[in-house]
Amino acid sequence: LTPRVLVDGVAAGRLPATDRGLQYGDGLFETLAVRGSAPCLWSAHFERLSLGAQRLGLPCPPEELLLRECRRLTNASAPCVLKIILTRGSGGRGYRPPAHPRPTRILMRHPWPDHPPAWYEEGVDVVFCRMRLGSNPALARIKHLNRLEQVLARAEIGDPRIAEGIMCDGEGRVIGGTMSNLFAVAGDRLLTPRLDGCGIAGTVRAQVLRLAGAGGLEAEETDLTPGDLAAADGMFLTNSLIGVWPVRRMESSTFGLESLPERLIREVRELALTP
Amino acid sequence: LTPRVLVDGVAAGRLPATDRGLQYGDGLFETLAVRGSAPCLWSAHFERLSLGAQRLGLPCPPEELLLRECRRLTNASAPCVLKIILTRGSGGRGYRPPAHPRPTRILMRHPWPDHPPAWYEEGVDVVFCRMRLGSNPALARIKHLNRLEQVLARAEIGDPRIAEGIMCDGEGRVIGGTMSNLFAVAGDRLLTPRLDGCGIAGTVRAQVLRLAGAGGLEAEETDLTPGDLAAADGMFLTNSLIGVWPVRRMESSTFGLESLPERLIREVRELALTP
Repeated sequence: LTPRVLVDGVAAGRLPATDRGLQYGDGLFETLAVRGSAPCLWSAHFERLSLGAQRLGLPCPPEELLLRECRRLTNASAPCVLKIILTRGSGGRGYRPPAHPRPTRILMRHPWPDHPPAWYEEGVDVVFCRMRLGSNPALARIKHLNRLEQVLARAEIGDPRIAEGIMCDGEGRVIGGTMSNLFAVAGDRLLTPRLDGCGIAGTVRAQVLRLAGAGGLEAEETDLTPGDLAAADGMFLTNSLIGVWPVRRMESSTFGLESLPERLIREVRELALTP
Repeated sequence: LTPRVLVDGVAAGRLPATDRGLQYGDGLFETLAVRGSAPCLWSAHFERLSLGAQRLGLPCPPEELLLRECRRLTNASAPCVLKIILTRGSGGRGYRPPAHPRPTRILMRHPWPDHPPAWYEEGVDVVFCRMRLGSNPALARIKHLNRLEQVLARAEIGDPRIAEGIMCDGEGRVIGGTMSNLFAVAGDRLLTPRLDGCGIAGTVRAQVLRLAGAGGLEAEETDLTPGDLAAADGMFLTNSLIGVWPVRRMESSTFGLESLPERLIREVRELALTP
């Protein structure tokens, strides 16, 4: 039987209550699409995990070990989701991290999410969340385990027809969706929020920025207000599992899909789901 | 044998990897001094836990249940530390919290910390941390599990003679120590940082604010800069385990203990260690 969870390589669903991942959110995670038993955009995910580990002062497990454990979990499975959590392991009461941490790595397999096909083809409806994102450059861009702001933002959305909530920082700048990065098309410019103070630098976001130039679009990381979004010609959201969702409606603003960079979106979608 | 950890009332040291406390830091904690098998400042701790649960939309366990489990862990033990963690329990992949969460409660016993007696009598040395605290009014004052900023701040301090690190918010306002609240004496005023955007509203801090008036001091929650602290007549730190530590030195500034409100400190120390 294929295990569903590996904790430090062992098929076990539990971990010590002393783990600093639980005690303080002292760790990182990655969420990956898996197709044909192989993770998609692997290099980008591993690179972000390594960067996060460096920022937190955590030793990062070898790439080959993670890939091997990923295969053990997803061997011969249908498309699924792989979540990797890396914590600073157990060590003492109190914030001070141990001098020589022994990190805990947790790999979990989840079913592929069954979002409505129309969300990919006709676009999604989104709203603004009241919950703001606190700013801290030291924690921006990496995918650490301190995610209460996203949890509380997501909890605001009761209507299942709303696919995503847009979050702003304390100064009212748009940062992104609770679980996605955001792009706006304004004329021949492709705009996405700068993530200097908060937000996660998504792996699919990076693909969009990389490929945009080839499509004749000028891609730009910039400051965006809710008003800028409302005035945009089009909008789309990205993450590892959804690839790209066009936005059809944001509060009282509606967007056509015709202004979106069709070829770019097609290419990014394919990359996002290719091992 | 007295257990060291109770997970939902069961003497077990492990919990499911799917717990949202680990996945997102989706929960709260309290750290209490225990004397004669009874927790100190219990009402204040339970009140903060309840307030935090309300803010996160979590059902809070009954007070009597927590007290009973506390007694099971600390029965006939020497002075020790009790940590209570309350998470949103397991539930789904993704930030959206389950509609009807089944919280996990974890109670852990830890040995009493053996800080040098001189830190209580002659005062401690502190430094400023480079790590800043992000601001989010929705998460300020409560003791939630998203504590990476404190972990990284504490990691800056390598010298074991430094008792605590002082943290500022993104605008350079002093908020408190990594694990303590901070008070400054300026003439006959007793000043402590406002905690509107970040910081934890400590249980001992509340006792200081409550009792200050009786000692002829005007207690005030206000904005404080590092310069304000350097110019103060005296300074002290508070938390549930240390009670009160006078500050002797902060970077290149030194403070006498003679300006500190001696009677207030004595009263607060006693309260902090009385069940």
